[in-house]
Amino acid sequence: MEIISSKDNKKIKEARKLLTKKYRKNSYLIEGFHLLEEALKAGRSIKQIFVEENKLTKLTEMIGSEKLLTDLSVNLVSKEVLKSLADSESPQGLIAEVTKIEEVIDFSAAKFLLLENVQDPGNVGTMIRTADAAGFSAVILLGETADIYSPKVMRSMQGSNFHLPLVRMAKEDCFAQLKKAGISILTTTLSANSVSYKIINEPHFALIMGNEGAGVSDEAVKAADKLVHIDMPGQAESLNVAVAAGILMFSL
Amino acid sequence: MEIISSKDNKKIKEARKLLTKKYRKNSYLIEGFHLLEEALKAGRSIKQIFVEENKLTKLTEMIGSEKLLTDLSVNLVSKEVLKSLADSESPQGLIAEVTKIEEVIDFSAAKFLLLENVQDPGNVGTMIRTADAAGFSAVILLGETADIYSPKVMRSMQGSNFHLPLVRMAKEDCFAQLKKAGISILTTTLSANSVSYKIINEPHFALIMGNEGAGVSDEAVKAADKLVHIDMPGQAESLNVAVAAGILMFSL
Repeated sequence: MEIISSKDNKKIKEARKLLTKKYRKNSYLIEGFHLLEEALKAGRSIKQIFVEENKLTKLTEMIGSEKLLTDLSVNLVSKEVLKSLADSESPQGLIAEVTKIEEVIDFSAAKFLLLENVQDPGNVGTMIRTADAAGFSAVILLGETADIYSPKVMRSMQGSNFHLPLVRMAKEDCFAQLKKAGISILTTTLSANSVSYKIINEPHFALIMGNEGAGVSDEAVKAADKLVHIDMPGQAESLNVAVAAGILMFSL
Repeated sequence: MEIISSKDNKKIKEARKLLTKKYRKNSYLIEGFHLLEEALKAGRSIKQIFVEENKLTKLTEMIGSEKLLTDLSVNLVSKEVLKSLADSESPQGLIAEVTKIEEVIDFSAAKFLLLENVQDPGNVGTMIRTADAAGFSAVILLGETADIYSPKVMRSMQGSNFHLPLVRMAKEDCFAQLKKAGISILTTTLSANSVSYKIINEPHFALIMGNEGAGVSDEAVKAADKLVHIDMPGQAESLNVAVAAGILMFSL
């Protein structure tokens, strides 16, 4: 197999476009062996793989040479070419293009995390990873929440996107469907007219986390069955949104 | 007052050195009005302030013109000069140099957070902010934990460093003092021979969080009165360290 060593190679230029949101209509990139393994385990369709020559053996061992040759389109690339496709400093010598799938929400499930206008990709990814760890049913992305297919979100999810459905919905539609399904909407807020999370006892609920600076929207407050806060005995005025989400998801 | 508009100005060059750890022996930089306000509220000594001309009114209003003129050394600087002293994209037109103080740990207090070899500055800062919010007594920094005076840690602490003592100690000394004071050492781990955090009920404890990749050290395991884990009903293999710390600090 020939090694692609030019960043101007047509295939590389096409793949590099996937670092930009507007080109991620049908597929996206993942970095490293762990995410590729999770994608394969989840039965996702891999469009192609870019791998450095010295990592080909590791890839073959992971996938099996037969499957590798028949099912996956593998491109050998130079270190520089691989780096040009990567967002992180250490992509571990492997990047794969994964086909997007249409994910659906089962509104008869018990626990939902709703992210509304969460801007920081690290926060979005970390909260999805935490929702996965806490056994939540799905994560719904509302408003201006960062694109989950961006390399930074992908990295901080650590494969959780392959474990539970992540769906972008319009707010109105989402709130209407939750209400129809009898799921309590718990909106987090710092405001005084809210209850402590310690007294919440709902079997089915959707927890809304808001923007890092501005918090949740008026619509999210209006849609709430309960407004919830975390009691803070210390002097800090607020918590990082991903930490707050973690405390709530593991105690509700 | 003259406006310093050259990045090569001697004062600016000296101050810029504080962006590098080895020069932060006696002082460090903070960015923005909020942190300056917190530093002043805590009675910290401000060595000097760099401020853009269009923010001088805001500064005068915050501090009072009399105190500003007598107690604080204020330098007017151009936008470019201010940016050259900043680590963040938006330093809000103000950077201050704060004198370090010697902080002491009161080992008769109840709740301690110990950070051991935590590398990411954002994680270190977020955990200190969470410890503050949860009403912890102090944070102790062990091993290779990131320098708390770095601009990134400063930013993510959001002023919590002015609310509770942060002390760097040698591991052996720290563990010996905790044992002498009768404080239970709770070491977090993913290993099987640990107990769920839900059954922990200690009035006085020190919680040890470890490195993002490698977890806690053997010494921290050996020093533990109890090894603790967080039960994860979902599929994710682990939690972000700052999220895990948040869950533990708000439930223990």
